Amino acid sequence: MSRYPVPLQQLIQLLKRLPGVGQKSAERYAFHLLEMEEGDLEVMGEVIASIRGRVCNCSICGALLMPGANCTYCDLHERNPDVLCVVAHFKDVFALEETGEYQGLYHVLGGVLSPLEGKGPEELRIESLLRRLSEGKIREMIIALDSTLEGDATALYLKNAISHLPLKVSRLAFGIPLGSSLDYVDGGTLARSLLGRSFYG
Amino acid sequence: MSRYPVPLQQLIQLLKRLPGVGQKSAERYAFHLLEMEEGDLEVMGEVIASIRGRVCNCSICGALLMPGANCTYCDLHERNPDVLCVVAHFKDVFALEETGEYQGLYHVLGGVLSPLEGKGPEELRIESLLRRLSEGKIREMIIALDSTLEGDATALYLKNAISHLPLKVSRLAFGIPLGSSLDYVDGGTLARSLLGRSFYG
Repeated sequence: MSRYPVPLQQLIQLLKRLPGVGQKSAERYAFHLLEMEEGDLEVMGEVIASIRGRVCNCSICGALLMPGANCTYCDLHERNPDVLCVVAHFKDVFALEETGEYQGLYHVLGGVLSPLEGKGPEELRIESLLRRLSEGKIREMIIALDSTLEGDATALYLKNAISHLPLKVSRLAFGIPLGSSLDYVDGGTLARSLLGRSFYG
Repeated sequence: MSRYPVPLQQLIQLLKRLPGVGQKSAERYAFHLLEMEEGDLEVMGEVIASIRGRVCNCSICGALLMPGANCTYCDLHERNPDVLCVVAHFKDVFALEETGEYQGLYHVLGGVLSPLEGKGPEELRIESLLRRLSEGKIREMIIALDSTLEGDATALYLKNAISHLPLKVSRLAFGIPLGSSLDYVDGGTLARSLLGRSFYG
């Protein structure tokens, strides 16, 4: 709505850059911000402006950590050094850690291959992954990428790139999400869950 | 998730203060912000921190405007000075303007009466409303408040407070929203739409 004062229009435009936020949500957020205390707004603005400088990426695995801190995911005394899990984004590391089922190492690619967005192998942290794997200490690589066209293509690319290494390669299982009814599961997922069925006993 | 670095946790907590934003959405916004350019983050932070100082409220009607600007909604040459529309928030002014159906004056209360939140008549801009109305130039007051318990109570309070003035008082019509099917309209709304039915010809 062009009737808004210019600073408000600017705020709405900026809020629309958040994922999944359209005009209506951005307006709602903007009006809420306008009713907040000035001190709180300053804190929020300062945190947003400085967030990039207050966290950094581990030079080995690419996970998020605070500057100067040691990466807990690369600590060979705490983690299983035989397994390495490849993820697209650092947020995936947190999601996998939350499961409590994985104690191995990580490698964050920084995205997936996407020719349309100009993301080739050079834009991802693939070279450093190959370097880590060729050191010969890792015995299994788990590919934990999205089940999308780009995720599948990236998984295939990685599998081919390390075919010369003596390494087990696995990918996360596809199947029915826990708690869901067969009625609501699409045919492709159902077919994959049939192929990957587990046997009793 | 407590595994996030502290600055990220802080950012997530702040984003959760936006209306309708829970843990999951806040995490999604935070990770998106982390992937934005540092310059863009600085602009966004600066706009959020300074927004309160870059807009102000009209001293007469309470609508939002830029400091030093004249309030277009109070311009008696442009607007119909016979009608005054009472709204709760300044965002309601924009919504009514968008309809293009209203050319009168506005008065922003700054909320509705809500004893639970400690909002009594003194916290709202009711005194200045009564002062404007008692000048005798306004002939009709349109109450454009939410159809909630608090909105209804505030409307009743206003109606009683100006009962001594020679003034027509109206309230926005209640009825079926445009484009909606009777199946999905609740009984209360249907009853009100029956009471307020319009006759042909």
